[in-house]
Amino acid sequence: MAAAVVWRRGAAWLRSCRGNRELPGVPRARGCAGSREVVPTCERYAVRRLPFARLADGDVAFFERLMPGRVITGEEEVKPFNVDWLKSVREPQLALRVPCFHCRLQPAGVEAPDNGRGVSDSQVLADGSALDCLTSLRKDNTGYDLKQLFIGSEGTLGVITAVSILCPQRPKAVNVAFLGCQSFAKVLETFTTCRAMLGEILSAYEFMDEKCMELVETHLKLSSPVADSPFYVLIETSGSNSTHDEEKLHNFLERAMASGLVTDGTVATDEKKIKVLWSLRERITEALTHEGYVYKYDISLPVGKLYDLVTDMRARLGQSAKNVVGYGHLGDGNLHLNITAESYSHSLLEAIEPFVYEWTARCSGSISAEHGLGFKKRHFIHYSKPHEAVLLMQQFKAMLDPKGILNPYKTLPSAPDRSAC
Amino acid sequence: MAAAVVWRRGAAWLRSCRGNRELPGVPRARGCAGSREVVPTCERYAVRRLPFARLADGDVAFFERLMPGRVITGEEEVKPFNVDWLKSVREPQLALRVPCFHCRLQPAGVEAPDNGRGVSDSQVLADGSALDCLTSLRKDNTGYDLKQLFIGSEGTLGVITAVSILCPQRPKAVNVAFLGCQSFAKVLETFTTCRAMLGEILSAYEFMDEKCMELVETHLKLSSPVADSPFYVLIETSGSNSTHDEEKLHNFLERAMASGLVTDGTVATDEKKIKVLWSLRERITEALTHEGYVYKYDISLPVGKLYDLVTDMRARLGQSAKNVVGYGHLGDGNLHLNITAESYSHSLLEAIEPFVYEWTARCSGSISAEHGLGFKKRHFIHYSKPHEAVLLMQQFKAMLDPKGILNPYKTLPSAPDRSAC
Repeated sequence: MAAAVVWRRGAAWLRSCRGNRELPGVPRARGCAGSREVVPTCERYAVRRLPFARLADGDVAFFERLMPGRVITGEEEVKPFNVDWLKSVREPQLALRVPCFHCRLQPAGVEAPDNGRGVSDSQVLADGSALDCLTSLRKDNTGYDLKQLFIGSEGTLGVITAVSILCPQRPKAVNVAFLGCQSFAKVLETFTTCRAMLGEILSAYEFMDEKCMELVETHLKLSSPVADSPFYVLIETSGSNSTHDEEKLHNFLERAMASGLVTDGTVATDEKKIKVLWSLRERITEALTHEGYVYKYDISLPVGKLYDLVTDMRARLGQSAKNVVGYGHLGDGNLHLNITAESYSHSLLEAIEPFVYEWTARCSGSISAEHGLGFKKRHFIHYSKPHEAVLLMQQFKAMLDPKGILNPYKTLPSAPDRSAC
Repeated sequence: MAAAVVWRRGAAWLRSCRGNRELPGVPRARGCAGSREVVPTCERYAVRRLPFARLADGDVAFFERLMPGRVITGEEEVKPFNVDWLKSVREPQLALRVPCFHCRLQPAGVEAPDNGRGVSDSQVLADGSALDCLTSLRKDNTGYDLKQLFIGSEGTLGVITAVSILCPQRPKAVNVAFLGCQSFAKVLETFTTCRAMLGEILSAYEFMDEKCMELVETHLKLSSPVADSPFYVLIETSGSNSTHDEEKLHNFLERAMASGLVTDGTVATDEKKIKVLWSLRERITEALTHEGYVYKYDISLPVGKLYDLVTDMRARLGQSAKNVVGYGHLGDGNLHLNITAESYSHSLLEAIEPFVYEWTARCSGSISAEHGLGFKKRHFIHYSKPHEAVLLMQQFKAMLDPKGILNPYKTLPSAPDRSAC
């Protein structure tokens, strides 16, 4: 595998962007409203570049010496590395291909060695020193648990170069049920029932609303396996005894149908049908990209309030949005709220933010459940973390990366004393 | 609940201890060899006290004002708070009783609210500021995962004041099997078999050697429920369907007995008998304290090598130790190696350490699996962590607790530039 590291080339280019500067403050969308064109990042967001953003010819020559033939400068060759996966913004034309990951995973389903269950990692720090804490031990309480600080830090504290992963036994039996529910209240009640009845074999509880189903049907030509419903639930079980698991699932479904929690459903036990059911849920993101511009929010909330945010947002935006949809990992309290429009619109963004963050904060939720704050949401961290915690994070960042060279402009708001170009 | 915070009282007392100073370096046991007397800490270990170790009358008065009636000075009243739980060392005579924990747990077995599954905590930092990151969300990726740095830091970075704990459903069925094995190789093979056959309901796999059984029989008058064996295994299952679980367990036991992995065994399904079986394993520590002085090591290793350390240590120490025993959480790769003697002996300690740490390091194990390095093992951290990691930990400590007032003399070797009295 290879990753592309992208720099902005040359001071002239940089100067052309700096006129847009509005910092310090929240990055503000600008320009391009109403356009589906993939615009340069600096045209959409005000970003205060740090000194290393200027790439000199000497830098290119250095990397050419280090990794001959891996520096790409051809416009067409570089293009795919320079556009974000949502195709909303792009970067200039220089990329460096570097080897990224070397995976060595224990084959699933065989007896994993008993010392292979721990989780650990190794990093390279900003000063170039290597921090090798890779171990396969499950328990290790010697000093502070440094790896935890790097996990989820989005590369802003160090570059993770090796990971040791807990490999559980491959389940001998996997079942998936895809069900229709008439309300979100029934989705919740079904969850409570299935936690009690499926217990230790429940490995996923996902939900999606009818709008999501419409999108995968329309854009991807997938077919719903159950009767039209306002909500759909996907339940997966993973266990060691297929007879036991099927019996548990059967008992649960009988209860759920008899009590009216679920109005229609289908069950898959063979791998092919399981994949088909999962694709209805997993390809929603792909279907959304066909809609135009997508405003994406990855929120965690107390599950009882999970869908209220979608309903409130839908009411708030009215006709100004094309679609407001909700799906996600209900078992984890994780909602993916997605709002689509024909193209990017600054006024629509202003109707969504900070409303979505304020709403989440009122429910003590997280504005970034699993994907990280990245570039767009770093200035909203205060909606989910107290001031003291952010200050402490900034101190860690300053200590580990005093020059701010590691994945710059991400995760945290800049500390007040950070120098900038 | 209440905790006792103990200070050393007065400069005169401190001066009497400082003659023993040998730092910087590993704390060295001294004095008291051959005696079972509970000696002052400073007589056994060289410890370089920091300035706040001197408690003035003004300090006592301050706490009297803060918490009237909670400062204890009476010799007899204070005694139980001033001796460590192994009754090996004691501290001088002033204690302050402070309220410690206020627990509010979700009642087990009822439907836990779905937002109650996260894990988080709140801390008070060394400068007195509160860091309130308490949340009940399972997923929250806003910034760095600060709580992880505090968990397991033994109070050296902050005082944890509140904890949010993941409460799984209380299992509807619990079974315990207690088995005899003829060799450690069979203990390992039994583990592999039971992981495959019990899968998702396996909640504990513990082992103990025959010496451990002798100790609980001799000192606590417990009876082994199975025929004498070189090794014993305790297996616990926790699930949601007793019929399924008992069938799985029955199938596993049939296989284990038929293949000669296990030579005798008993199974408990009712709570009372389950407790009796668990007590054989859980009361080993208590039985050991009746032996005299106990040298305790909490090691994690690749499970294949777990018992070799006990065998090697037994051969090394010969008659100089009363007993060398091994037991632990085999499922976690965690060995509790315990060595007993009539009384504390410095020469025996020197025969054990650093041999035990060197042995562990050669197998890429951890010298402190679950209990932390504390006071005695902090200078041995390098056997399990690279120099760069220890340096980074010391930087974190210096940043968060520049005066070194939080649980001093624990977890990390002092940084070279730390001032001392």
